[in-house]
Amino acid sequence: MINGIEEKQFATIEGGVCAAKGFKANGLNCGLNKDKNKNDLGLVVSDVMCNAAAVYTTNKVKGAPILVTKAHLAACGGRTRGFIANSKNANTCNIDGVEKAEAMCQLAAKALGIQPEEIVVASTGVIAQILPIEPIAEHVEELAAGLSYEGNQKAANAIMTTDTVMKEIAVEFELDGKSCRMGGMAKGSGMIHPNMATTLNFITTDAAVGSELLQKALSDVVKVTYNCLSVDGDTSTNDTVLLMANGLAGNPEVTSESEEYKIFKSALYFVMMNLTRMLAKDGEGASKLIECTCAGAPDLDTAITVARSVVRSPLVKSAMFGRDANCGRIFCAIGYAEADFDIDRMEVAMSSENGRVEVYRDGAGIEFSEEKAEEILSADEIFIHIDLHQGDAYAKAWGCDLTYDYVRINGDYRT
Amino acid sequence: MINGIEEKQFATIEGGVCAAKGFKANGLNCGLNKDKNKNDLGLVVSDVMCNAAAVYTTNKVKGAPILVTKAHLAACGGRTRGFIANSKNANTCNIDGVEKAEAMCQLAAKALGIQPEEIVVASTGVIAQILPIEPIAEHVEELAAGLSYEGNQKAANAIMTTDTVMKEIAVEFELDGKSCRMGGMAKGSGMIHPNMATTLNFITTDAAVGSELLQKALSDVVKVTYNCLSVDGDTSTNDTVLLMANGLAGNPEVTSESEEYKIFKSALYFVMMNLTRMLAKDGEGASKLIECTCAGAPDLDTAITVARSVVRSPLVKSAMFGRDANCGRIFCAIGYAEADFDIDRMEVAMSSENGRVEVYRDGAGIEFSEEKAEEILSADEIFIHIDLHQGDAYAKAWGCDLTYDYVRINGDYRT
Repeated sequence: MINGIEEKQFATIEGGVCAAKGFKANGLNCGLNKDKNKNDLGLVVSDVMCNAAAVYTTNKVKGAPILVTKAHLAACGGRTRGFIANSKNANTCNIDGVEKAEAMCQLAAKALGIQPEEIVVASTGVIAQILPIEPIAEHVEELAAGLSYEGNQKAANAIMTTDTVMKEIAVEFELDGKSCRMGGMAKGSGMIHPNMATTLNFITTDAAVGSELLQKALSDVVKVTYNCLSVDGDTSTNDTVLLMANGLAGNPEVTSESEEYKIFKSALYFVMMNLTRMLAKDGEGASKLIECTCAGAPDLDTAITVARSVVRSPLVKSAMFGRDANCGRIFCAIGYAEADFDIDRMEVAMSSENGRVEVYRDGAGIEFSEEKAEEILSADEIFIHIDLHQGDAYAKAWGCDLTYDYVRINGDYRT
Repeated sequence: MINGIEEKQFATIEGGVCAAKGFKANGLNCGLNKDKNKNDLGLVVSDVMCNAAAVYTTNKVKGAPILVTKAHLAACGGRTRGFIANSKNANTCNIDGVEKAEAMCQLAAKALGIQPEEIVVASTGVIAQILPIEPIAEHVEELAAGLSYEGNQKAANAIMTTDTVMKEIAVEFELDGKSCRMGGMAKGSGMIHPNMATTLNFITTDAAVGSELLQKALSDVVKVTYNCLSVDGDTSTNDTVLLMANGLAGNPEVTSESEEYKIFKSALYFVMMNLTRMLAKDGEGASKLIECTCAGAPDLDTAITVARSVVRSPLVKSAMFGRDANCGRIFCAIGYAEADFDIDRMEVAMSSENGRVEVYRDGAGIEFSEEKAEEILSADEIFIHIDLHQGDAYAKAWGCDLTYDYVRINGDYRT
């Protein structure tokens, strides 16, 4: 159990955000991105209104799209038909940001024949550059006309920035005997840090779940998935996780913390945890995934703080890149985690598909074979295991190594 | 005034930790470092006992030398004769760490003909590798025999790890008509972050200052110098700042917060602020210094938090390396600073010896000439100016850019 959520395996299926009944998607290049082969504008719409839940960046600088999305969800009693999203420009710190974000919703709504408040909006890309609305205005009808139940990858491509791979997943599960589906897409890949980053995450489901529980499930799961993801310690201005449930699966609406609710939450954890891993693995310049588990913690927050401290340490990250089993850096990162625990009781190990090695016990490092350690670190998924031996709480955090490519990408991002 | 300290200019002089009367130093290669041209063992000793003040890492994992130093200072009523220090091995997370740190003091004390408790100890280098005591035992008499009033650079060289330049400074000032001197040496250069890092800092003075005020002055100055330094966000296990005052200048001992105390504190700020700048500029792989000032803050802690947030952001650091005026990243880093202030009233500017450009006002970015910005960012000292316009407090923070070399150095540190 992580944060009261049971970790279950689910069968994955194709379809991403279109896997659930009644969700159409599309994406195209409208010209914000000079590379015509890369989409920059996406649209995902449900056939009927959805209950919606959302989590946004904690940054004081909030992208204008977030302000508009909040207002529209409020205007519709927490419900929405879908969203329009663009990459290449974050529409943030601009004098006309809200105006442009509203215009995007108006354009999409007009093309769909619905009200502007029934659509929400998200943007990702460069901050503090005026968003040109013309390319969007000129392509929005084509975008709406091309919506299809198979358009998930076009939309997933549209939200990518420096991502090198598309991130989507979908699963099937049963609620009260009805088959339900849930799918998600996400984009990273820099500026990713606890409390989210320029991650845009959209999850769709045909399960019928009441608004209040939908938000509770999302908040509980975000805490132990996206908020445990760190690529570089930067928290972006535009992060948005949006969960839409249109109820078309026909199950009786989940309105209490029943067994059905637990299954739904486990499915949501599975979807978001896997997207989180994909985001970490495709972190800017990353060559490998680092997953750190902190078990035996006195409470959940301590477990999260310790695990995150390790995956965000630039020195740990650089050592992982160099396959250098410099474990002192792991102990050091555990030690400066801002949490209250007794460091002398902990045990630490490292593992990968190539084996496992214990590195710390009884208040001191353990000698280990450098050869074995290098073999372990040569895998592309590295696991760090911490057991504090002072409680039952546990949590995981995900990150990636720090590479030359991270510096190259971010030394000259805008050109 | 920063934290109640007046920022004054002082005349700098030669001599580093030997500038003040009665301080001898030496350094040599004892074999911990395979490069025979690089010292790895240093010793600094005062002719008479000194009042001492110290600040240590906040990391829960504390190097054994710190435990021994604390015990020895306590045993001598907060006084000491000097210190022995080594690089290449941090003597941390080792089962025999305290034993070895004690042995270093015993060896030095024997060679000097004093008690082991009269000497303190510091180590820096790789964590969780057993420290071989033999090379130290074999060279400690040579080390003590070679102590001289001109040995400061030999000692400063001994504490360097990945530092590319030696860091020392000394100043002259007057207390009650007596000429006093103060000098310092420091080593960085990775694992440097607010609340210190593998920074070892030793400051010597011949001014006579009471123990209590010595500690107060050091704590007040550390808060706005070393603790405002960030190279990579990692806080080390071995950080130590040691301030020793032997009173040989002959001034009446400073025992109240008099004008003399204020002058002493300004001198200490000048010495430590300049060492801080040297550490930032020589951060691992750094090609330039970033100094961020946050003025107009409601209180000091807010000013520090905001300024530190900017200099530690990997995205800001990467952009500075690439001379990319991606100011959105600066606004973003200000926005996620964990402090309570109104972001819409702030103004932001960037400058260097090549000019100045305003980049943010009235809640939005300001358009600026990219050419001009690139020219500004091509300097090797970049200044970021933030005015929150909501109070009188201000603070500075220092960092460096994030470069390919940082990754190279840390991808394979131990070999």
